[in-house]
Amino acid sequence: PPGRKVLIVYAHQEPKSLNGSLKRVAVEELSKQGCSVTVSDLYAMHFEPRATRNDIVGCLQNSEEFNYGVETWEAYKRGGLSNDLIEEQKKVQEADLLIFQFPLYWFSMPAIMKGWMDRVLVQGFAHEFPNCYDSGLLKDKLALFSFTTGGSREMYAKGGISGDIRYVLWPMQHGIMHFCGVKVLAPHICFAPEYVSEEKRKEMLIAWAHRLKTLWKEEPINCSPEWYFK
Amino acid sequence: PPGRKVLIVYAHQEPKSLNGSLKRVAVEELSKQGCSVTVSDLYAMHFEPRATRNDIVGCLQNSEEFNYGVETWEAYKRGGLSNDLIEEQKKVQEADLLIFQFPLYWFSMPAIMKGWMDRVLVQGFAHEFPNCYDSGLLKDKLALFSFTTGGSREMYAKGGISGDIRYVLWPMQHGIMHFCGVKVLAPHICFAPEYVSEEKRKEMLIAWAHRLKTLWKEEPINCSPEWYFK
Repeated sequence: PPGRKVLIVYAHQEPKSLNGSLKRVAVEELSKQGCSVTVSDLYAMHFEPRATRNDIVGCLQNSEEFNYGVETWEAYKRGGLSNDLIEEQKKVQEADLLIFQFPLYWFSMPAIMKGWMDRVLVQGFAHEFPNCYDSGLLKDKLALFSFTTGGSREMYAKGGISGDIRYVLWPMQHGIMHFCGVKVLAPHICFAPEYVSEEKRKEMLIAWAHRLKTLWKEEPINCSPEWYFK
Repeated sequence: PPGRKVLIVYAHQEPKSLNGSLKRVAVEELSKQGCSVTVSDLYAMHFEPRATRNDIVGCLQNSEEFNYGVETWEAYKRGGLSNDLIEEQKKVQEADLLIFQFPLYWFSMPAIMKGWMDRVLVQGFAHEFPNCYDSGLLKDKLALFSFTTGGSREMYAKGGISGDIRYVLWPMQHGIMHFCGVKVLAPHICFAPEYVSEEKRKEMLIAWAHRLKTLWKEEPINCSPEWYFK
């Protein structure tokens, strides 16, 4: 609906890829609805995935023994995180919905996107004990994982060789988003687009655009072990 | 035993950390046994986690539409991967055992180590359809995930708020190592070292050294859904 803000965190090297098209479809459809859409195009930004001392501007609390979690927490509180992190945190703060668009790499997100999670979702900003899970600091936001796979739907079935696709969603949806209080919409998965016809790939784009039309009416999943491992 | 080769892939910024000590203990104990031990200290190496066109030396198969998986596969076959990848692949090829030592970040490995997986375990080198899972190209090797957590053992229990710790092992052990044919030894987990006494942390190091003494007699786990989700 008009006024809603969406951040798309996008990780693919090639604009012409299906991931690139899925991202474009989302920007177009959501903009048409009157949403304001921001894209973090991680490869184009040369986004830094490594969690290092460079993420803290100025002095460390303890320069004798570097503790990334503690130092970024302290830096966040005094406004001393590096600019790229402050930028991303602003985008997250303003967003009602986070869409993560990526190809599944090794049962997880590509390292460049994992680095976004590792570095942006700093303690104090996204969570702060005991404010985690349902009381995480990013509650009232929604997230949606939209990704492509190499393996087929059959491989990722419950009895399939790669196991239920929901198994791979646990760390991402529950371990990251739910931990920060974010409610999770059902994932959007395009299975094995490299092994289907151009026609089928077009249908995948149409299906995504179609889903986005009624996205704001969707209820979040019940993000508990039952959803994943029932 | 003498002659066995071990590669430790290590991801922590601080040598004085518990992860740093666990790595050192492994180098010492395994060297004492007569093993030859190599360490890939990812932060110290400024290891590149991003999967990009830079990983391919020379021309691309299809420069109109970049496909990382296809291009690295082709580059591997003609010896055209970037030097840092060739180096890591050599270390993997020579190793009998791979130990991954890291702090758990967001229910997974830090991005810098995920980047190692994304970039080093190239098709053609680590797997090549239909040579995956039990017939993966790295069969006859062993892997062991050794990591520290922020959450306690209780949080990572089956009924705990963070779910069974085995849930987070599925993508890493099954989705990556088993996929490449590598047999997986039981993980080594130090729960919440930041919240225990110095004394307890010392015990954690002793326990690791102790386990390593009989490591070569261990049987791999049965890396199937039952182990993770029974």
